[in-house]
Amino acid sequence: MQAVDLLLINAIVVTMDAAGTVWQNGAVAIRERNIVAVGPTSEIATVYHANETVDCGGCAIIPGLINGHCHVPMSLLRGLVADVQLDVWLHGYMFPVESRFVDEEFVYTGTQLSCAEMLRGGTTCFVDMYFFEDEVARAADEAGIRAICGQTVMRFPTPDAASYDEGLDRARGFIHSWQEHERITPTIAPHAPYTCTDEIYQAAVQLAREYDVPLVTHLAETGLELKESLENVHLSPVGYAERVGAFDIPAIAAHCVHTDERDWAILRSHGVGAVPCPSSNLKLASGVAPYAGLVKAGVSVGLGTDGPASNDDQDMWNEIHLAALLPKGLSNDPTLMPAKQALALATSSGAKAIHMEQLIGSLEPGKRADIAVVALHHLHTTPQYHYNPDGIYSQLVYAAHNADVRHTLVDGRFLLRDGVLLTMDAVQVRRNAQAIADNINGFLSAREVNLLDKIVAIGGVKQDEIFEVQAKAKLVDEALVMAMLNRAEVRIDKQSERTQYDTYFSFVNPDRGRVRYREDHRHDPGARLDPKYTLTLTVPAAERDQYPHAILLSRARYTAPADRSLRFYREYFAPEQITEVEKQRRRWRITYRSEEFAVNLDRLINQADPGPFLEIKARTWSERDAAYKAKLIGELLEQCGVFDDQLIRYEYVDLARA
Amino acid sequence: MQAVDLLLINAIVVTMDAAGTVWQNGAVAIRERNIVAVGPTSEIATVYHANETVDCGGCAIIPGLINGHCHVPMSLLRGLVADVQLDVWLHGYMFPVESRFVDEEFVYTGTQLSCAEMLRGGTTCFVDMYFFEDEVARAADEAGIRAICGQTVMRFPTPDAASYDEGLDRARGFIHSWQEHERITPTIAPHAPYTCTDEIYQAAVQLAREYDVPLVTHLAETGLELKESLENVHLSPVGYAERVGAFDIPAIAAHCVHTDERDWAILRSHGVGAVPCPSSNLKLASGVAPYAGLVKAGVSVGLGTDGPASNDDQDMWNEIHLAALLPKGLSNDPTLMPAKQALALATSSGAKAIHMEQLIGSLEPGKRADIAVVALHHLHTTPQYHYNPDGIYSQLVYAAHNADVRHTLVDGRFLLRDGVLLTMDAVQVRRNAQAIADNINGFLSAREVNLLDKIVAIGGVKQDEIFEVQAKAKLVDEALVMAMLNRAEVRIDKQSERTQYDTYFSFVNPDRGRVRYREDHRHDPGARLDPKYTLTLTVPAAERDQYPHAILLSRARYTAPADRSLRFYREYFAPEQITEVEKQRRRWRITYRSEEFAVNLDRLINQADPGPFLEIKARTWSERDAAYKAKLIGELLEQCGVFDDQLIRYEYVDLARA
Repeated sequence: MQAVDLLLINAIVVTMDAAGTVWQNGAVAIRERNIVAVGPTSEIATVYHANETVDCGGCAIIPGLINGHCHVPMSLLRGLVADVQLDVWLHGYMFPVESRFVDEEFVYTGTQLSCAEMLRGGTTCFVDMYFFEDEVARAADEAGIRAICGQTVMRFPTPDAASYDEGLDRARGFIHSWQEHERITPTIAPHAPYTCTDEIYQAAVQLAREYDVPLVTHLAETGLELKESLENVHLSPVGYAERVGAFDIPAIAAHCVHTDERDWAILRSHGVGAVPCPSSNLKLASGVAPYAGLVKAGVSVGLGTDGPASNDDQDMWNEIHLAALLPKGLSNDPTLMPAKQALALATSSGAKAIHMEQLIGSLEPGKRADIAVVALHHLHTTPQYHYNPDGIYSQLVYAAHNADVRHTLVDGRFLLRDGVLLTMDAVQVRRNAQAIADNINGFLSAREVNLLDKIVAIGGVKQDEIFEVQAKAKLVDEALVMAMLNRAEVRIDKQSERTQYDTYFSFVNPDRGRVRYREDHRHDPGARLDPKYTLTLTVPAAERDQYPHAILLSRARYTAPADRSLRFYREYFAPEQITEVEKQRRRWRITYRSEEFAVNLDRLINQADPGPFLEIKARTWSERDAAYKAKLIGELLEQCGVFDDQLIRYEYVDLARA
Repeated sequence: MQAVDLLLINAIVVTMDAAGTVWQNGAVAIRERNIVAVGPTSEIATVYHANETVDCGGCAIIPGLINGHCHVPMSLLRGLVADVQLDVWLHGYMFPVESRFVDEEFVYTGTQLSCAEMLRGGTTCFVDMYFFEDEVARAADEAGIRAICGQTVMRFPTPDAASYDEGLDRARGFIHSWQEHERITPTIAPHAPYTCTDEIYQAAVQLAREYDVPLVTHLAETGLELKESLENVHLSPVGYAERVGAFDIPAIAAHCVHTDERDWAILRSHGVGAVPCPSSNLKLASGVAPYAGLVKAGVSVGLGTDGPASNDDQDMWNEIHLAALLPKGLSNDPTLMPAKQALALATSSGAKAIHMEQLIGSLEPGKRADIAVVALHHLHTTPQYHYNPDGIYSQLVYAAHNADVRHTLVDGRFLLRDGVLLTMDAVQVRRNAQAIADNINGFLSAREVNLLDKIVAIGGVKQDEIFEVQAKAKLVDEALVMAMLNRAEVRIDKQSERTQYDTYFSFVNPDRGRVRYREDHRHDPGARLDPKYTLTLTVPAAERDQYPHAILLSRARYTAPADRSLRFYREYFAPEQITEVEKQRRRWRITYRSEEFAVNLDRLINQADPGPFLEIKARTWSERDAAYKAKLIGELLEQCGVFDDQLIRYEYVDLARA
């Protein structure tokens, strides 16, 4: 009898070795952190004597699952926002929240939550890419899980580096300090071709080569990335990565959704691991990776969950399930990606994809004892068919769930036992995570209600606060307006003609204010040709009718250049009502009694009452000044022959809605 | 205070009512089988006094999920076979197994297993289509779940009806005997246009109208179905169903994968419910239903799991998740099918699709108390964001799992409480299910090893058992063969020339025998034009060399017309080796000394040694007769100038493999 530390016996042992060995009543013998033997229980139990023997009857023993691509700290952002376009997701939520909240504590806490979740579901190894990656490494190390931790570098400022030079320095320091660790492989992760430069990739390759660690990067996630890459560098993202030298060392390329035969040949010839993320690729509408094509082309393919902010779970079972189903459903061929091959993506093939096939990915003597034990005695895994030895793959891939995992071991050590986490206090982990989320929630709650905060959040807002004094009259005599403008006391400073397309976003609670998206086309001779887009927030005038002549006072008016699409703002502000107002405007900027005013003569398009309407407006910082300007506006109105009963108190948008 | 039976309090109540009301700390009051009130806990707890109050803190209360299409007894066939083409799945496995094993006990037991699984995951209502549907109804009734049970009718013989007339009678009897049941709606389910006739649909409509029950049918599941429908009746399956009158009454159309705008207009105008089955449609490579298009067109859309033999679970959470992800991933638009809409497919919209929106689908006073209570305190549902009231949909759809369901109620009655089934003994249900599966497993185990059984299983085999006596010689002198054929003692009965393309399926264990798929083209004048396809199983000759002249004796030879494709057989037999042999054959059927022989002169194509080869064969039932014929073959060989050292002992296929 040979002595070992641990025997797992009486289970269906799915080795995922090259021969596809399955032991119907099998056992695994473990000494220290390694697998010593795998075989029939009857044989193993005779040869080995263990300190501890665990009966795994009714279970399957499989290699621990490998999450080939993730951003584990983002578990704290799970459920933050969903079902919006990528730009809204990124610029409206992820970037503003990450820039405010991502720090060492965030990263450590988020990693703990993710490790807990992954161990709960039988994942024993992950490949990460995020900021403050030393905190990812620390939390992963404490959890006992295996990880490749990639310190992100990109050309933009990040939460942990003001420039990419700083990012590269940080990566070097991180790799250097973790280089001796057995379970944690520190590395550098140039984010993606579209966020990096040639220099970043080259420096990253040099660093990774120096420390003999694999390079982690995103490649070909979206159709847009492919399109722009072809336009800009006349190469696919994969082709670009090859050219820049990223594949001269072992590399892990996340996503590879928009790749073709030529890309696959490049990936295969350099031994690059391709790691699509089925759920995330679907949820962010990136597409469906060519799983079967990649596998057929001989590329080492893994699977990842991607960040939990776009998934929203870190459930490799889900990813395996999708990787098995999608190729069938989209090809009209149900034999594509059989269950065994799908499971390999998260085990044996996944290990190759992350360049760790010597250590993990299958249950074979000499490999690390990274193991998941999956209970199969549930309703949803009943009945069991044994006539076909490969039936176990089908059961694991199509029927079993994350929650069926009973034990998870890394390096021969139980990290999850009978569903209980041994290296972490799940309650405390959840509590810490929720505490950070509560802060973010507070920030977003305020921002979501406060339209100004939402505008500020996406940047570019003109934060000057302006009172607007305004009078508006209906059906004016244009000749009288012209006469007023021609008076000696009135100096015309500027004159223009425009078509303005205004879209108003309104809310059931009017106190939230109203956002206007304006597309302004000038068509007076010599004017700018390009339309001007502005975003304006107005909060309702609290002091209507305090001024003579029904003059309106708007408080808190904010403008910003609208450099995104109307669609972006519509999804971002999620208004309860949308109103469109189109008008032809003749505008005069005038000076009257040393004060500046704007005079607008407007004709509405496609409205029951098209006008013309007269508007006279002035802006000021001072409330006292506002009263004075209101008086002057009254004088100008009189000169236009407009009397109080002609003044109207609503905005065009209200007219349009009536 | 008003008296009620049950209060569920302190949960996030997701009503799925038309206004999309969500109570962050809400309660549901239940009296008898109905919901009496839904609102803030503070309010409900003040107004209602309950016999029992259940604190659902940390949970969401949602309407019980509706599985709009399934074949619940097929849970017993879960995992039976996967990753094969539909025809192999159907003709190789489902039909042979169903025809042998589906009876009342099978249906009752399978339904119990499915009800247990569905209740475990918060499904409170299902729409079924199977055989012996009265047993589905009985098991569902006992489980306490709500169901629409459709007795299948099709033009082929089924396990419960030798003809469709018998099927219609059975359906009528079934509906009649269950018509008064409150929770179980018995109905008729004409299987699909391609398995029914106009008469079946018309009779089904008449029956359903008579008893005021909805019609259940499959429509437009595969591209092939659509193509054949257009060819055969010049209408899409949906158009056909309309024409035949199936939509003159409330109808539930499963799948609707291959439908377009015109179909959607038909479905909407008749109020037909469309019920795609995301997992099954992917797994069987049927495709992806146009979820967003159907919804946008105003069709009432539900979701189903389909049969567990093609899914393999009955997990509506999975289906909701897929219904939310697929439209995004395949459209490049991540705003399609937002979480709230996806959840509606299994609740409010799903209820409309099955014509039960008056009773179920939302948590509103007056509706039945069909409820799922989902725990949200798991790692994978941490953290929670409340700033956006709709965030709960995202959490439920993208993060929560089947296993998170804590309580399930139907008609106000707990059927699952704290994860424990109250109306069924889960252990006993699993045991009964496994017992039936063990029988099927035994049948398949025997069949999979025994190639003959596999051939018999797919039908058409010529079961005559034949001894074949055969001698084969290499490099013969053709002139001597001709001289033999011209001898007076030899009568030529038939003569032909052919090209034969043979594909041999071999196995590591030679005792299993060898299967040959032959495509035989005649090209002598006047012969049949169409090639002939045959499937032949030969078991190795045990008694080689017992006869003089190295004559071979094959035992157990079986032939069947090969009416399926080579691809079908390749997947069905899953050989370990495939060998192709192509040859030109001149064949004479002769009579010599009153015995019949076949003489073949063969030239192999694309082989190192193309021949020609001479074969002389005879068949017999008798071993004694075989010896006699071997002697006669020896005489014929001599006349051809063939001596023993020219005789060869291998088959062409062995030559090809050498």
